[in-house]
Amino acid sequence: MHMLALNKPDGRQLWLYSRNPLNQQGITAPSPFPAPLQANPHLRWHPLRGEWITYAGYRQERTFMPPPEYNPLAITVNADHPTELPAGNWEVAVFDNRFPSLTTAAHSAPELIVPTRPATGKCEVVVYTQQADSSLGALSLAHIELLLQVWADRTVQLGKLADILYILPFENRGAEVGTTLHHPHGQIYAYPLVPPVPAGMQQQALKYWRQNGQGLLEALIIKELNDGRRILYQGEHAVAFVPVCARYPYEVWVAPILAVPTFADLNDDQRRDLARALKMVLMKYDGLWQRPFPYLMAWYQAPVDGQPHPECHLHAEFYPPYRTAEKLKYLAGTELAAGFFAMDALPEDKARELQAVEVDIGNGL
Amino acid sequence: MHMLALNKPDGRQLWLYSRNPLNQQGITAPSPFPAPLQANPHLRWHPLRGEWITYAGYRQERTFMPPPEYNPLAITVNADHPTELPAGNWEVAVFDNRFPSLTTAAHSAPELIVPTRPATGKCEVVVYTQQADSSLGALSLAHIELLLQVWADRTVQLGKLADILYILPFENRGAEVGTTLHHPHGQIYAYPLVPPVPAGMQQQALKYWRQNGQGLLEALIIKELNDGRRILYQGEHAVAFVPVCARYPYEVWVAPILAVPTFADLNDDQRRDLARALKMVLMKYDGLWQRPFPYLMAWYQAPVDGQPHPECHLHAEFYPPYRTAEKLKYLAGTELAAGFFAMDALPEDKARELQAVEVDIGNGL
Repeated sequence: MHMLALNKPDGRQLWLYSRNPLNQQGITAPSPFPAPLQANPHLRWHPLRGEWITYAGYRQERTFMPPPEYNPLAITVNADHPTELPAGNWEVAVFDNRFPSLTTAAHSAPELIVPTRPATGKCEVVVYTQQADSSLGALSLAHIELLLQVWADRTVQLGKLADILYILPFENRGAEVGTTLHHPHGQIYAYPLVPPVPAGMQQQALKYWRQNGQGLLEALIIKELNDGRRILYQGEHAVAFVPVCARYPYEVWVAPILAVPTFADLNDDQRRDLARALKMVLMKYDGLWQRPFPYLMAWYQAPVDGQPHPECHLHAEFYPPYRTAEKLKYLAGTELAAGFFAMDALPEDKARELQAVEVDIGNGL
Repeated sequence: MHMLALNKPDGRQLWLYSRNPLNQQGITAPSPFPAPLQANPHLRWHPLRGEWITYAGYRQERTFMPPPEYNPLAITVNADHPTELPAGNWEVAVFDNRFPSLTTAAHSAPELIVPTRPATGKCEVVVYTQQADSSLGALSLAHIELLLQVWADRTVQLGKLADILYILPFENRGAEVGTTLHHPHGQIYAYPLVPPVPAGMQQQALKYWRQNGQGLLEALIIKELNDGRRILYQGEHAVAFVPVCARYPYEVWVAPILAVPTFADLNDDQRRDLARALKMVLMKYDGLWQRPFPYLMAWYQAPVDGQPHPECHLHAEFYPPYRTAEKLKYLAGTELAAGFFAMDALPEDKARELQAVEVDIGNGL
């Protein structure tokens, strides 16, 4: 993997990645925004829930659904109308979000009736490819492997920053989940704390690890493989399945079979097989109804707190918003207010639907 | 308050409520479904999150958006085409959901690779009025007071059932939050456990109570009243405000000023003022953009575990899906995957918008 780091004129950073050496000649980092970034989001403590909320007033102004002629994630072809990215032989690019909910530039917080603090952290955009009409699942296996390396590199680099404790790469795909830009991309949030959901998961995993000397997800994966009914991909090192405890009808998890704490801990064989599992799931999703399948994809990994985390197990969870081809699953009273999920489909039935979708993930190039 | 309990031919129960004595002559409980209810949902343990999920396969079949000519919550006018409700002088009605995620009839669970159990509990529908084109906020103060009494009665009655530990009345209003029926109604979920969100809130409240000998929400309300910037209604006994730690742009909380654990613990003065606060918020919502304002409304109260809960404070939280008149707030990566909310609006600004909406809540009749 090759990487080139550049600075945008408004003070943000850009990292270009490729499997091949990057042509650096004449490459500069553009920005659609002439003025320097003036971001100062802050956190407020929610006493009833015992968690922090971030407030960034200027985000209300961000583009909702830009006209089709402007794609800020395309390469810049006219220097008078710069986008976020330069031309070049890069394959994956990462840059600082112009509208961050968390930023290392946050420096103050208002005094209020609850505790507050600057919303430090980082929000990054990950552009998967230069091709605006592609998708994560349409990328070659080798390109997906590169993306897994990029996520690893960002995890390592962000983990070195003071105050950053948790790195979450995720992708919101489709208008149904609010995506405003259809160029294939995801995001990375680097939090100054371990957020509630990963914190809860880590607590469960740690308890299990101490009692059983084994990873909680690793133990579940062995049971899923033995059961077999919900498996979508089984390789030598990676697996994909509809979990027995799915909270969304088409929920799928993708993971290395053995517990690997972070992207940076994957070996080459594991990374290669994880790319295969990931592509298999994405192609099955798009094949199911022969149309782009919307989802939220989140990658959970160990906190970057400098401690070993043998209890943590890197994996992706996909939450698709549909419950049938025509019907959306709305999160409503019981899910949002109580945190108690009600499913009207059995994971075994949804797994059978996805198993029946035949796909060819190619040979790795 | 007057109440009449009836049994539907398919085995479900119906309770009619009114401020006046109920005319019982010739009233029977109809059902659109001739066959007895065959519900046997089950719970599965989610080991990574440490929580239960409920599975009820038949719910996939429920009506998504019925044609306008059929309203199952209207009164039955033709016995050949029964709805869920009889004619009569009732004002509020409650009946067992035909498609429950939880039911006392649940009797078995499949053996799987995670712990399972029958999904005991209850799911009820609360019809606010006989008028299909009305809304909660359009009801008279006295009618809203009756509804508060109905929620109290259901809390007491459901609390007496074995295995029920938590009662959550809520309303999903508007197509934006997935509502399929526009006749004014809400739901009640009676859980066989304290669900994750109220359990977390109770934990925070208990910790505060032990340290300070005061209710956590009561303390926050005093601070909100002293600050004043986010207050929408301040009465002698009840208050409504955009909380300083709002997670949704137009989030509002409605509560008695002093800590009251459940609906059943409200005295007459508190109930009367709570109805005023509630109507004020609902009228401001609908007045803001001069159109019905969608929301999720959830009422948190103390668990019904037979223990005293001085740390608990009955209150409603409203989560509206809009962030501006035109833009929805989608819950995506950071909210759903990390449980970390990012707000692009300041509660102080949203409170000002709602404060500016002038409404007349009437004199109580």
